[in-house]
Order: sequence, then structure tokens, then C-alpha cells
Amino acid sequence: MNGNKTSLATAVVAANSNVAQAATVVADYSRTPNQYVMVEGTKLAYRTLGHRSDVPPLVLFQHFTGTMDDWDQSMIEGLAKSRTVVIFENAGIGASEGKAPDSVAIMARYAGGFLDALHFNRVDILGFSLGGAVAQQILMDRPELVRKAILVGTGPQGAEGFKDLPNIISENMKKSAEVNVHLKALLFFTATSEGHQSGLEFVKRINNHTVDPEPVASQEATQAQAKAWITWGSTPANNGQLAAIKQPVLVVNGNDDLIAPTVNSYVLYQRIPTAQLVLYPDSGHGSLFQYHALFVSQVNTFLDGVR
Amino acid sequence: MNGNKTSLATAVVAANSNVAQAATVVADYSRTPNQYVMVEGTKLAYRTLGHRSDVPPLVLFQHFTGTMDDWDQSMIEGLAKSRTVVIFENAGIGASEGKAPDSVAIMARYAGGFLDALHFNRVDILGFSLGGAVAQQILMDRPELVRKAILVGTGPQGAEGFKDLPNIISENMKKSAEVNVHLKALLFFTATSEGHQSGLEFVKRINNHTVDPEPVASQEATQAQAKAWITWGSTPANNGQLAAIKQPVLVVNGNDDLIAPTVNSYVLYQRIPTAQLVLYPDSGHGSLFQYHALFVSQVNTFLDGVR
Repeated sequence: MNGNKTSLATAVVAANSNVAQAATVVADYSRTPNQYVMVEGTKLAYRTLGHRSDVPPLVLFQHFTGTMDDWDQSMIEGLAKSRTVVIFENAGIGASEGKAPDSVAIMARYAGGFLDALHFNRVDILGFSLGGAVAQQILMDRPELVRKAILVGTGPQGAEGFKDLPNIISENMKKSAEVNVHLKALLFFTATSEGHQSGLEFVKRINNHTVDPEPVASQEATQAQAKAWITWGSTPANNGQLAAIKQPVLVVNGNDDLIAPTVNSYVLYQRIPTAQLVLYPDSGHGSLFQYHALFVSQVNTFLDGVR
Repeated sequence: MNGNKTSLATAVVAANSNVAQAATVVADYSRTPNQYVMVEGTKLAYRTLGHRSDVPPLVLFQHFTGTMDDWDQSMIEGLAKSRTVVIFENAGIGASEGKAPDSVAIMARYAGGFLDALHFNRVDILGFSLGGAVAQQILMDRPELVRKAILVGTGPQGAEGFKDLPNIISENMKKSAEVNVHLKALLFFTATSEGHQSGLEFVKRINNHTVDPEPVASQEATQAQAKAWITWGSTPANNGQLAAIKQPVLVVNGNDDLIAPTVNSYVLYQRIPTAQLVLYPDSGHGSLFQYHALFVSQVNTFLDGVR
């Protein structure tokens, strides 16, 4: 499927090897086909992009109701320049079969089973939002699988403000219809002119798959994942489990996250002894997408071990 | 004074230009001589290291009672690989003449006068601790001089915990004598085994100047700067002034800063609309020294404009 691009790159290599180095072929996420693997008798979909055999693959865990098509194409392609990126889809979402779990613990069990099924015994993980709760749960339940973890726009058990999710979404759905702006541009970005513009640009970088495009989350999956998120926030804080994390952790957020209020990132950072915190200006839940070039650069610095 | 190193590098260039690129000559901060300039009739000392003409120089503002010899040699040399670094010494400290100011406002006035005297009309600034308060004041009083600012281990006016400085220092002076550990290793680093080890390594990287070594701060300068710090912390918060900052700002700290409690860095980040926050694990006031390689890498990313 990348036939044209590959031939072009080969021609450039022949013509001028210096230029070719600068113009490395960028894998096209929108044309990355689904792959499938059986986990607990359920067929789960995933995609892989990029390749680097000397470092662990980076496995991504998606936000509430997000499918594999909801990842920012520029961010995915940026990350895939330096490593193998694996986009995981939990049960009951997108092209993954089965019933969407209504708890983070079961989502993490599927995720662990997925890593086992692919014979990954040591990975880096990046969890965004609800996926960040799943990533924390994996760190607690299956720590041997994880080399380093990145937690974006998320919070610990007992996180402040997670119970407000239904209200925030319904308010912004109404506003989205009124002002004719994509719901995610409102939910994931600030209302400043830069935030607004970043939101409009972001929505062009998602849902672009021309191969294996994904269906949106069903009502049933939406309800199950909302329950998982709210339950995570209403469960008593698990400070001891966070204090026991040994892997390096990078915590990331914007300054004004509507979905996972920013203070939760500060709290995660303070409770995980190995954590580093990066917070961006004038940005919300989708800070990693708004600053995708900076985020990719900081992820590389973190994963490649500068300290 | 760098004659030997320069000749060696020149020989390497002749032998193999690829190797020479990797083995760039590292300027030796410990042999960087003082320079002097008159500001408001007072002779102030400074040092410069590194050179890069296409970006503004990076001007450093030092902590409470710190002289130019108290900067981490590895950090300074790391920063100087990518830009011109200017180490500024305020009045009444080290080799600078005059009376140490007892307010941040006067320290900032001297700093602005210093930049004017050197005909710097656009610089990047890095303020650490009390120097971070001075850097904030420059952003308010002389914003036209600053392209970007880095604020490390500091806090806004009205900062929490700044009034405790005398107690914290006297407690740690007692402990320093009891356990026979350098005061700064106790004040600037955590008590964990990694923090302790980092503190012992840090104190080897300061006060190494073989050319123009500096005298320690006088009792008078110590009292004046303590008053400046405590007054900064007891002055009402200046939220409006911080909200008006237009320059990109990078706020940095460790998770357990005894001198400028970490929450102040989070508060600065939340009040400055253009601020990015980076907080390191298992580190205190001296986080920039403990993680000097990572810090230099992040400073370069910030100053060189990846976003």
C-alpha cells in the first residue's frame, strides 16, 4: 500500500543519499491496516507502525470511547519515526469484538493478555485519559511487562473531578451543536484563540483511515467506559500502590484539562517516586496533540534515557 | 588558557573531521576569567562561556548567597555547548563591588543595567531560586530585554514557605556539622540514597575555579539577600503581572524543594499563561544540577523552539 512512497524514496536514495537521510519515509498511519489477535477468546484489533528493534515497542492505550482512528495522525507518525508503535484497542471498541469492560481492572486484564498474546515481555506504555488509568493498573498488576510508562491527561484512583464526566460531555455536546464546532475541539482544547485553532487543526488529523476505518463507539461501550472512568475516580486513593512503582514514569498534561483536571497530574507526580512531570501552557486534555512535535521530542528524551 | 585543548582539537580536525565533530572542544568553566563592567557606578563581575551568534545569549541569575563559583560546572559547560552563556553577579557578591541589595526590585535594576551596559537588547534568562525572583522582576520591569525565561526552584510574590529560610538554613547547618556533609548537599538534595549521592557529586562540581576564585558571601550580603527573599515571599501575590507575561517561560523544580517549596512552581506555571512546567523525581532545590544532562537537553528544546 505504500508502494508509491517507497519507490519515490528509493529514487531519492539513488540520486542523493544526504537528501534521502533527511527525507526518511514517513509511515502513513491512515493506511495502516488492522491486525487481529485472540485474547481470552475475544478477537482484538491492533495496528503497528514504525520499527526499531533495539528498544521495546511503545504500546498506546486510548481515551474514553476513542478508537484507533482517534489518535492524532501526526503524533503517531512522529512517535513511529523512533520506535515501533503498537496501537491497542480494548474489547468492545472499534474493530475489537466482545463486550466493553466497565472497569479499569478488566480493561487492564485484556491489555495484559494482548501483550502476552503478541509475546511482548517488556514494553513501554503510553496511556491517555481512561487509557492512563489502564496503564496505571498494568503497572500494578503486571509490572514485569513494563520498562517505562507515560501517563497523559489522567489521574490516580480517587482523582478529583472524574465524576463530572457526564455533565461535561452533555454541556459540550450542546455547545458543539450551537457553535458548530467538533465536540473534541471543545472537550480537548482551551477556549483561547490558540487553543481553539489547535482544536480545529486536531480534528483534521483524526479519523482519516482509508484502510479499515473504525466505527464509532456504541452506546453500550460508551456507558461501560463511563462507568469505568467514574468508578476509578470514586475509588479510594491507592497511594501505596503508586509509591511502589519502580519504572520511570512521565506524567503529561495541559494547564486546563476539563476531563481529568490538571491537579490530578500534579498529584500523580507527587505520589509516584520515579515520576517526572511535564505540563504545557494554554492547553487542555489534548495537550499531547496540540504540542505533538514537542511531545514526541520529550517522549524520545524520556524513553531513550537522557537523565 | 585553553591552549592545550585547542591544539589537541585542531590536530584531531586535521586527522579526521568526523571524529572532530563528535569531540567538540568543551570550554572549561573553572578556567573562565572574570570580566568587569560598570553599572550605576558600581563595578560588577561576570563571566561568559561558549559562543553562538544566531541565538540570544543565555544570562544566569544565581541563588541566595551564591557566587559565580557556585554554579554546577557540568551544567554550565553543557549549556555553553549550544549558546553563549553569561554568568551575572549582582552587587555586593563575590568579585562584584558595591552593597548587596536587600530587595528583588533593586537586584533586578542592577541586572537590567548590566544587560544595558553590555548592549544586550534581547536575551534569554535563567533564574535559580532568588535569581528566579530577579528574573520574574526583569520580566515585569524590562520585558523588552527578554526573549524567553527559565525559572528554577523559585516562586511568585507571596510564595508559600519563603519565610522559613532562616530556620531551614540554621537546622541544616547544625545537621551539616553533625553528619559532616556539605550544607548544600543537605539543602539542595533529597535524603534518599540517590539524592544523597547526587548531593555529594554536586559539591565536587562547584567552587572549582582556578582562575579568579570567588570569596564567599559576606555576612552583610547574606542578611541583605535573606531580607530580599523573605520580602518577596511576604509581598502580596502579583497575579496580574504574571498573567501579563508574553514570553515563553519554562518553570523547573524537584519534587521536594526545601527552600522554595515545589507547589510554588506549580502555582507559577498556573499563573503565567505562556509557562511550561517540568518537575523531576526524587530531587530538591538543586534539581537542575542533579539532572544536569536532562536539564540542558530540555533547556535546548525550549530555547531552540520545538513546539
